[in-house]
Amino acid sequence: MSVLVVGSVAIDTVEAPGGRADDIVGGAALYFSLAASFFTSVRMVGVVGPDFPRAVLDDLERRGVDLGGVEERPGRTFRWSGRYHEDVNVRDTLHLDLGVFGDFRPKIPDSYQDSRYVFLANIDPVLQASVLEQLRGPEVVGCDTMNHWIAESRPALEQLLKRVNMLVINDEEARLLSRERNIVRSAARILAMGPHTVLIKRGEYGIIQFAGQSVFAVPAFPLEEVTDPTGAGDCFAGGFMGELARSQDTSPAGLRRAIVYGSVMGSFVVEDFGPRRLMRLTREDIDRRYRQFVNLTAIDGV
Amino acid sequence: MSVLVVGSVAIDTVEAPGGRADDIVGGAALYFSLAASFFTSVRMVGVVGPDFPRAVLDDLERRGVDLGGVEERPGRTFRWSGRYHEDVNVRDTLHLDLGVFGDFRPKIPDSYQDSRYVFLANIDPVLQASVLEQLRGPEVVGCDTMNHWIAESRPALEQLLKRVNMLVINDEEARLLSRERNIVRSAARILAMGPHTVLIKRGEYGIIQFAGQSVFAVPAFPLEEVTDPTGAGDCFAGGFMGELARSQDTSPAGLRRAIVYGSVMGSFVVEDFGPRRLMRLTREDIDRRYRQFVNLTAIDGV
Repeated sequence: MSVLVVGSVAIDTVEAPGGRADDIVGGAALYFSLAASFFTSVRMVGVVGPDFPRAVLDDLERRGVDLGGVEERPGRTFRWSGRYHEDVNVRDTLHLDLGVFGDFRPKIPDSYQDSRYVFLANIDPVLQASVLEQLRGPEVVGCDTMNHWIAESRPALEQLLKRVNMLVINDEEARLLSRERNIVRSAARILAMGPHTVLIKRGEYGIIQFAGQSVFAVPAFPLEEVTDPTGAGDCFAGGFMGELARSQDTSPAGLRRAIVYGSVMGSFVVEDFGPRRLMRLTREDIDRRYRQFVNLTAIDGV
Repeated sequence: MSVLVVGSVAIDTVEAPGGRADDIVGGAALYFSLAASFFTSVRMVGVVGPDFPRAVLDDLERRGVDLGGVEERPGRTFRWSGRYHEDVNVRDTLHLDLGVFGDFRPKIPDSYQDSRYVFLANIDPVLQASVLEQLRGPEVVGCDTMNHWIAESRPALEQLLKRVNMLVINDEEARLLSRERNIVRSAARILAMGPHTVLIKRGEYGIIQFAGQSVFAVPAFPLEEVTDPTGAGDCFAGGFMGELARSQDTSPAGLRRAIVYGSVMGSFVVEDFGPRRLMRLTREDIDRRYRQFVNLTAIDGV
């Protein structure tokens, strides 16, 4: 089963304590697609300008990413540049140019309309809702959002959440959305808004999942060096949704395994600038790290 | 096998968002002893004034805590008062009066000198070393410390660490001690100082253990309400060392189980002010929460 993703495609410039990278490809939909492509075929919806490198699109296609939903429009691709602090959990945006992404209106190609596994990466909740309206019968709908929409578009977001199965957000966003500081109460409030599962990303501390009465926590993989955190959350979502779409196992155990695969993908992407680490990743790397996650968390086995 | 603990005994006053408690008993050695007493017999070394409530000492004795090493000296028991913020990870010390603890010189009774499992709670590293000198053959030496000693008594602390097997500190202390921000490199540096195991406490994110090449991470138990975080780290240490002394299983799996028992004890104590929750805790409560920890972290089973 393929997975559909809708979101940004970008060209980023990143400065971090370990160096810098100029004009590397990025954006939530790109990171998601790359990560998910290790698990299943991907249908990608986004927009780029003619400045977006053709070779990257060709590479995505070779990886099984269907680019039928990626429009090329006149203008510049969305550009972001930022600087990470010594504490890489903190970053400043240095420059932002929405370019063709500024009036992005997702159009779902006919051939995508039967998509059952869908991920709505972080865009305006009105646009996220428009994606669902273009689909015939989405079954597993994952969704990300950000502080901006929570603060500025709460009514639209709350409407959307009624149609979302799994919300993937970070701890700060969860607090803002739920108006609760405590993570357990925060998750309970979010679950009452619609999703049956909320996955809260805690950066270097990993992921905690709340689904009904079930709670699952997985630590982040302890790395000696985090080179560039850009895309970690989107790669988590890509690994998670990609594995779910592959296995079609949304049982509690199936969800947990998918969360670990998502964590694996998030742990790799931060090892180099932009998507470079994923570009040279192998399936064997993924399975090895999955086993390391099992060892990292197993109470009885080592 | 019993476990020996040396550290502070106090009378605390705590303000927190959920209320306040005046003149409740506390101190690292008291929290440790209470937590460890659910697993094995405890030998306690500390100092109190005549103002320390006799009923609490009687209760400890009934729980199998040997108070032969607790001196009563003229003066006031160590008093601390503090206020936790809305974010309970942040606290201000409002008042501190060392009292009889100010010139505490741990004296190990003859009957304790054969202790093999030892925990040196947070006191001056010179005094911690003096404890080891009074013991015939300590085999498993756990140790806590704090920023103050790392900054002000580094040479003494480094000498001590050569004789410590397991260091239990929080993430901020680990960074300060190792002069490394990254937790993996930080742990590697600490292991090079002597301990074969370092347990890094990450507050609401749980514990991460580094032992040689092995890494084990366990999340904190997700609680709807943290009433009073005082003593959480000491109860972790008490549950951890208490279970280790009981099982005498210091294999990797034995250590992991002990870490989970420690996490269980830390998760209970924060549910009420001071040691109140531990005072009414049962062994069944502990085992139930241990199973909840297994469910919380099990990738394949739920």
